Amino acid sequence: MGPHPAVAAIRLAVRRVLHDILTDHTPTHPDTAHPDPTHADIAHEQSPPPLVLVACSGGADSMALASALAFEAPKLGIRAGGITVDHGLQPGSDLRAQEVVVRLTELGLGPAESIGVSVGRNGGPEAAARDARYAALDAAAERHGATAVLLGHTRDDQAETVLLGLARGSGIRSLSGMAAVSGGPGATRRYRRPFLHLDRQTARKACMVQSLPVWEDPHNSDPAYTRSRLRQEGLPALEKALGKGVVEALARTAQLSRDDADALDAWARQAEASVRDTAGLLECAKLYALPPAVRRRILRRAAIEAGAPAGSLFARHIEEIDRLITGWRGQRAINLPGKVVVQRQGGRLVIRQG
Amino acid sequence: MGPHPAVAAIRLAVRRVLHDILTDHTPTHPDTAHPDPTHADIAHEQSPPPLVLVACSGGADSMALASALAFEAPKLGIRAGGITVDHGLQPGSDLRAQEVVVRLTELGLGPAESIGVSVGRNGGPEAAARDARYAALDAAAERHGATAVLLGHTRDDQAETVLLGLARGSGIRSLSGMAAVSGGPGATRRYRRPFLHLDRQTARKACMVQSLPVWEDPHNSDPAYTRSRLRQEGLPALEKALGKGVVEALARTAQLSRDDADALDAWARQAEASVRDTAGLLECAKLYALPPAVRRRILRRAAIEAGAPAGSLFARHIEEIDRLITGWRGQRAINLPGKVVVQRQGGRLVIRQG
Repeated sequence: MGPHPAVAAIRLAVRRVLHDILTDHTPTHPDTAHPDPTHADIAHEQSPPPLVLVACSGGADSMALASALAFEAPKLGIRAGGITVDHGLQPGSDLRAQEVVVRLTELGLGPAESIGVSVGRNGGPEAAARDARYAALDAAAERHGATAVLLGHTRDDQAETVLLGLARGSGIRSLSGMAAVSGGPGATRRYRRPFLHLDRQTARKACMVQSLPVWEDPHNSDPAYTRSRLRQEGLPALEKALGKGVVEALARTAQLSRDDADALDAWARQAEASVRDTAGLLECAKLYALPPAVRRRILRRAAIEAGAPAGSLFARHIEEIDRLITGWRGQRAINLPGKVVVQRQGGRLVIRQG
Repeated sequence: MGPHPAVAAIRLAVRRVLHDILTDHTPTHPDTAHPDPTHADIAHEQSPPPLVLVACSGGADSMALASALAFEAPKLGIRAGGITVDHGLQPGSDLRAQEVVVRLTELGLGPAESIGVSVGRNGGPEAAARDARYAALDAAAERHGATAVLLGHTRDDQAETVLLGLARGSGIRSLSGMAAVSGGPGATRRYRRPFLHLDRQTARKACMVQSLPVWEDPHNSDPAYTRSRLRQEGLPALEKALGKGVVEALARTAQLSRDDADALDAWARQAEASVRDTAGLLECAKLYALPPAVRRRILRRAAIEAGAPAGSLFARHIEEIDRLITGWRGQRAINLPGKVVVQRQGGRLVIRQG
């Protein structure tokens, strides 16, 4: 008899990602479809087995992930470890973190450690906690020489992220949610999200049938947080109105939006060179001939390059710059965040920090 | 003392659209910034004044629209008329339609008429009613020689449309909502939506302060309809979780998604020629080199061209075709809706109706 379907599902998800990680980190001969097994064995002998870490809060999603990693990694010759981050935001969080370390160790993960961080205030409580967490995970990955860090975000988390992006109304990049593979600063492809296509219920079920104790973060149901309001009330109401497929539809929207945004960014990068004059200034007539979607991306990039902070640059700012091109009637200079000033002079855009 | 702010807002919205309509339909000399007024007067004498119709259900949005059209059109030398469509779905709908005609006439609109339609069943009750309505409006516009038909959709309707598109999970085209300008079959730029950036509350307020009686369509609060569930419960819950700006954010997402989808469609159309071999077959190696967003659009277009009905072609179908290119391991032929079969042969995609 095989494992419970939920356990089979989480293991399959992790197995696929571990395969991808091995493929990414195995030097291959691009001109041979079947790599020489002798060569692979030699490469294996020369370097120590790769280490994959799981970031674990002790909640159901990441405990399920830790259990699946502990089960699958040894079969592929991968070492598996776990990190829990103590944000120090609740009394007793240090003790809870120690408990998580014990559970990770019991699962057979090593290294298993807790890292304390101090959470700042930049960008609001959720963003500040996230920044501190990733900084700690990056540092841990470097210290242990880990090949990858697995994160337990599920399809439900993805759906919530898409709705949060939708509420910003700033275009398809913010609808693209979390990537299945992403890099920390200076570390490409470090983070992997094996459960991005798996629903939260499956992770919970997998913990239950494996008798894994899980911790319910009170933040997750605290109505002070936008995400928890969305989870507790917003998404259920949307499902009631639109039907049960909403979470899946949002997750699919994320993937499609990400691909679309990538393609348009690539187009904008490529088109940018062709719309600058010999002095490097953007020529309005040439910008005008581009599709609005491409033109606005070039304008956004130029504003950021001149010093406008990306996070404070909204769609309405870009629209205002765009009107210097599409609706020119002698407008005055436009002030952007970061003291960046945009004006039209002699058919060119002059964008500089004032 | 000027009009109430709500009345000023609806009139400004209509005035802008009427100006656009006149600009679209006035033959201009592209090489003169200031057209010769004498010439414009002559052109005006030669042709009868243009007619603009409003589609009016008798509800607050379209009654507000009718009142603003009646006020603004004469000032621009435009004739204004109104059409109400009797869907025959409720007892007494014919009498109600006659009432709407009386109100349109009282506003000074002429022609003012009611058109009865019979609603089929294709695509569900909402889609069938919409199809019948637009067919009747197209016919009325042709019969009266109308230059444009104004529709009363508000920003709130737009937000609902975006969420309905999101629930389909089929990508950014379905997030792009309704266009401010769209064409009926064979008639480009016929339909105009002056209130797409105006909230429903403003339209209601404008009716109230002008003492215009409005009719509340019981369908709008009937939980049997997805849109009314969304309006009554889904959107309010989302606003509660995400804040009051949600409707505006959704409307802005619509515009940005539309521009992005247009640009990517243009790219796909242009790239398509370069990935076909001399026999017109799609070459897998060349498709592989394109960004996924562009490649999938080419595949979708090719499937539709071969006879697959656009409405039954989902993201998962396109993904399956895409795997013939990105994950080729000798898969069997893929069956699409409309009896279209896709297979890979000799590095080419063969797509045909079987």
